[in-house]
Amino acid sequence: MSMDGKNIAGRLAELGIALPQPAAPVAAYVPAVEANGLLHISGQLPFDANGKLLTGRLDGAADIERGQAAARACALMLLAQINMALSGFDRVIRIVKIGAFIASGPDFTDQPKVANGASELFVQIFGEAGRHARSAVGVPVLPLGAAVEIDAIVAVRPA
Amino acid sequence: MSMDGKNIAGRLAELGIALPQPAAPVAAYVPAVEANGLLHISGQLPFDANGKLLTGRLDGAADIERGQAAARACALMLLAQINMALSGFDRVIRIVKIGAFIASGPDFTDQPKVANGASELFVQIFGEAGRHARSAVGVPVLPLGAAVEIDAIVAVRPA
Amino acid sequence: MSMDGKNIAGRLAELGIALPQPAAPVAAYVPAVEANGLLHISGQLPFDANGKLLTGRLDGAADIERGQAAARACALMLLAQINMALSGFDRVIRIVKIGAFIASGPDFTDQPKVANGASELFVQIFGEAGRHARSAVGVPVLPLGAAVEIDAIVAVRPA
Repeated sequence: MSMDGKNIAGRLAELGIALPQPAAPVAAYVPAVEANGLLHISGQLPFDANGKLLTGRLDGAADIERGQAAARACALMLLAQINMALSGFDRVIRIVKIGAFIASGPDFTDQPKVANGASELFVQIFGEAGRHARSAVGVPVLPLGAAVEIDAIVAVRPA
Repeated sequence: MSMDGKNIAGRLAELGIALPQPAAPVAAYVPAVEANGLLHISGQLPFDANGKLLTGRLDGAADIERGQAAARACALMLLAQINMALSGFDRVIRIVKIGAFIASGPDFTDQPKVANGASELFVQIFGEAGRHARSAVGVPVLPLGAAVEIDAIVAVRPA
Repeated sequence: MSMDGKNIAGRLAELGIALPQPAAPVAAYVPAVEANGLLHISGQLPFDANGKLLTGRLDGAADIERGQAAARACALMLLAQINMALSGFDRVIRIVKIGAFIASGPDFTDQPKVANGASELFVQIFGEAGRHARSAVGVPVLPLGAAVEIDAIVAVRPA
């Protein structure tokens, strides 16, 4: 897939994906900072299509699907932040890295499957340029009780 | 605010802020590494003005203020490390990203408010250049029992 | 130590270190992405010489040594990923930063000692160029029940 930004907008439309309104930071920071060709994006929380935060610790196999939906919602918010920070997707070269923090009960070890909810969306939308490095870890609790938080680094062309 | 390093020293004085002695790493690593225009700073722990580590998990609303003081102490230590690594603040272009790890009881979800203790200090000192991306997550326990650990990425001018 | 890649291969041999087969990602992402002179490497899990995952939370002083072995195993896997991504070590300029996530019981505060299992290996192999920034935090649980997960950023020369 070409990395032409118009194609990305088209690809989102093809997939029937409407980006959410980019969330305002819940505190004293900014959604994204560009420096030296890398855009660092703040950790994003998962909101559903109605703007409701997806909350709750993941405890067992029955929670994987719920977790994947939350990770995908974080990825949509990351896309919305990229779109806002860069005024579109023309300047995206590559999704470089995502850091997935997953609210986990003490015996929940399927963080990779959960984080795939985000990873697969990036590949679906950007193709090869969406293939990223990743860390995925369990945490006991996240801001506002969120189920998942994901931050990202994106390589960008000069403006 | 201009990003002139002399102004930053003056701004610290105006605010009555004396930087702590930069902490030696508690193990086999270094406080900061510069590469490709980015300074990566190791996770810093919170020490008070007497050099005492601020410890203990945050459990409820009554702990937010204590957590903010700890986050601010981490930020002061990050500033001390920037100052040491760059021999002052002249080369700072932008605080790009901070990663805040907050020792949290299972129901404590105010990590953003706690991390503001660091974020607000950076903005107070650097103005626009202090506005950064951020992730803030709960963790069960930190090195030496610290209440907060924060690492950072700073965009810097060539030496 | 010179940063000549042939020397690194020699140094590994001198130390009797055989790199493991680089692990395939356990999910929908890639092991490493290079952008703007930085190689971001995915979080690596610790496998022993027989390919067995080192699992289990660290709970007390008696677990430090086990944790250090796990951290060292993560570092070996990071080296194997660097070697694969760059077709050797010639292009490595500097290990910039590692992020160590350590599966920890609620009272285990020796994350720095554990992470040294990785940090010391990098210095042993790369000398000054192996001295990196670091964050080390406790987490309740990791993918597949791993004891440690470590990701890394490496500064690299153009291909």
